Amino acid sequence: MITIELLKEEIASIIRNYNSKGWSPATSTNYSFKFENSEIFVSKSGIDKSQFSADDFMTIDENGKGTGDFLTSKPSAETLIHCVLYELFPETKVILHSHSVYPVLISQTHENSVEFEGYEIQKGFDGQTTHEATVEIPIFNNTQDMIEFSKILKENKDRISNHTFIMRKHGTYAWGKNLFEAKRHLETLEYLCQCKYMSKVD
Amino acid sequence: MITIELLKEEIASIIRNYNSKGWSPATSTNYSFKFENSEIFVSKSGIDKSQFSADDFMTIDENGKGTGDFLTSKPSAETLIHCVLYELFPETKVILHSHSVYPVLISQTHENSVEFEGYEIQKGFDGQTTHEATVEIPIFNNTQDMIEFSKILKENKDRISNHTFIMRKHGTYAWGKNLFEAKRHLETLEYLCQCKYMSKVD
Amino acid sequence: MITIELLKEEIASIIRNYNSKGWSPATSTNYSFKFENSEIFVSKSGIDKSQFSADDFMTIDENGKGTGDFLTSKPSAETLIHCVLYELFPETKVILHSHSVYPVLISQTHENSVEFEGYEIQKGFDGQTTHEATVEIPIFNNTQDMIEFSKILKENKDRISNHTFIMRKHGTYAWGKNLFEAKRHLETLEYLCQCKYMSKVD
Amino acid sequence: MITIELLKEEIASIIRNYNSKGWSPATSTNYSFKFENSEIFVSKSGIDKSQFSADDFMTIDENGKGTGDFLTSKPSAETLIHCVLYELFPETKVILHSHSVYPVLISQTHENSVEFEGYEIQKGFDGQTTHEATVEIPIFNNTQDMIEFSKILKENKDRISNHTFIMRKHGTYAWGKNLFEAKRHLETLEYLCQCKYMSKVD
Repeated sequence: MITIELLKEEIASIIRNYNSKGWSPATSTNYSFKFENSEIFVSKSGIDKSQFSADDFMTIDENGKGTGDFLTSKPSAETLIHCVLYELFPETKVILHSHSVYPVLISQTHENSVEFEGYEIQKGFDGQTTHEATVEIPIFNNTQDMIEFSKILKENKDRISNHTFIMRKHGTYAWGKNLFEAKRHLETLEYLCQCKYMSKVD
Repeated sequence: MITIELLKEEIASIIRNYNSKGWSPATSTNYSFKFENSEIFVSKSGIDKSQFSADDFMTIDENGKGTGDFLTSKPSAETLIHCVLYELFPETKVILHSHSVYPVLISQTHENSVEFEGYEIQKGFDGQTTHEATVEIPIFNNTQDMIEFSKILKENKDRISNHTFIMRKHGTYAWGKNLFEAKRHLETLEYLCQCKYMSKVD
Repeated sequence: MITIELLKEEIASIIRNYNSKGWSPATSTNYSFKFENSEIFVSKSGIDKSQFSADDFMTIDENGKGTGDFLTSKPSAETLIHCVLYELFPETKVILHSHSVYPVLISQTHENSVEFEGYEIQKGFDGQTTHEATVEIPIFNNTQDMIEFSKILKENKDRISNHTFIMRKHGTYAWGKNLFEAKRHLETLEYLCQCKYMSKVD
Repeated sequence: MITIELLKEEIASIIRNYNSKGWSPATSTNYSFKFENSEIFVSKSGIDKSQFSADDFMTIDENGKGTGDFLTSKPSAETLIHCVLYELFPETKVILHSHSVYPVLISQTHENSVEFEGYEIQKGFDGQTTHEATVEIPIFNNTQDMIEFSKILKENKDRISNHTFIMRKHGTYAWGKNLFEAKRHLETLEYLCQCKYMSKVD
């Protein structure tokens, strides 16, 4: 049976693995999960993801402030993004983030969204059942103002239909109703951005 | 002496290794083997290949339906491709699949096939003995209709002369009379596609 | 509590990790640290970084000559660079170096400096608090004359405002007031150089 | 003290590491060493380098035929290249080979040789003491005729002045008076070919 401790270990292991792929250079990226209907656990601020451990999660309330033993701990600067995603998409249990170069590069040549068409891997997004479709992923401008960014997410909820979005010259967020699905969504987008960037015809 | 259990472990280890190379993002790809003249074992549907284990294989009959303990298990969606390959090429014992980006990119700029010429590594395909040859690998359009795709494979059997083919914007299949040979065929094609994609003159 | 021995082990582990990323081919790169106000420890000359161990550090004086047990050992050829950086930036405790290809490639197309703008990761440099800024990293010509290069560093101290610089067709140096910060600075620059090199618009 | 068995283990470990970098796809590449003035040990034919072990070396005579326990074993098809290199460069104790893509790509756009200039890493070649030099590495046409290729190596001995050469659309050989030096030479060439291929101005 899965427990909070096991889930922390599993996500921490994936965080270290993504770091080894170059998806979280320096101390970038942040991650969160919600166990059943418990509080949200989010990664602490400024952790080197090559050494991220289960102890590097802290609990927060719905406004992104530390709770319980973590009243004075500093959550990731982007914690509010996590809070809003849990609010907008209530089935969400795990949220992942990446600074992989491909979405960053794609966001430099695409304005409001990027479209993918005809790739088998598109089926990695929950709800997509065939490659014969066009998948549109929204791109939002980066900002340091998390309250402003929360508003943008809320206003654009309908455009965020594939459990993921891109922040310009920043990275991607992806989520799911469990770790397995969140991971699948993140990896699907990363792969599609790589193909799009490398494509000689796309 | 090799046993079914040992072979499962060996293939599972290679599956995890290929995942670490980025050849099976999200939950993509599928794999199978036939032990001597036993049933076919195929990977179950929707497994994260970074954690694929020997227990993630199931037995199927020649129509791709679960057998024995796996009557109600769901095999990979592309199981029928495996069944047809065992039928068309009766010496086949192991079938591998990859979503590596290079064949996907090559399939965007080549129509019915891709040709390789003058590369030493071409000798990695069974039957090729010199780099002074042209090797032609067929490219088939991707489809979600596995019965339709099975027909295409059967009709094009004669063109599939190097134990491998490419599915457009999807990936590659490669097989052999044992794991060692199937692996050699898959890696040979992956490398050749990378060279072709990166070549400034090819 | 951190000790000299623990710090040696930690840095050696990061050195091996960077080697696996391709940042120190052949026997290239060199590293140093200062424990509290102790002597400087620098990597010995000509070590294969894939096998670098805690024993591969030696103590030096402020002129880069071996001290104590290491009077006759040969420090890295670039030891004087380390000495000058500790002198110019007295808070520095750890200095890292990389031969990663991206800064080398960037140094071929940029003259005296390279500028980055609008990337979230710029915040990885201590003192940078927003992506809405331009970060300028100086590029110096490579030389085998370390005394000459020391002078150049001293003369350009004011331009070296982000704890890192690039040596043309050679690599990068980055430092910090502890290992954590030096690592963050190095990885921030590496990532930015990769984005700049790969960018289709930058 | 180094022994034959230890050296086998060390080289096998490097062979597996190079495989993980993609330098020996399929069953490509071959390796050899000479212990003091003993016989030559060369890798057996057709081994998957991801699983290469100390037991995969066999002894050969100066014509490349198996000796002792290995009278009937099949050495690598390119064994004669190793024999000729030990003859031409008598200080040689270890010979490495790579199918890395960069030298292969470089060999498609360069005719008889490739030149490198101004890179710090050039000092990785024994005898090179500054980046202010031009290093010329010969490129030979690939052939399946090893006797013919041996002649070409002998005729071009004077051009092979940096302990390495490139075979067109095939790969690189590099050697040294010990494993450490052979490794440094191979990695230096690989890195230089990568820089040259990726360079926007070179």
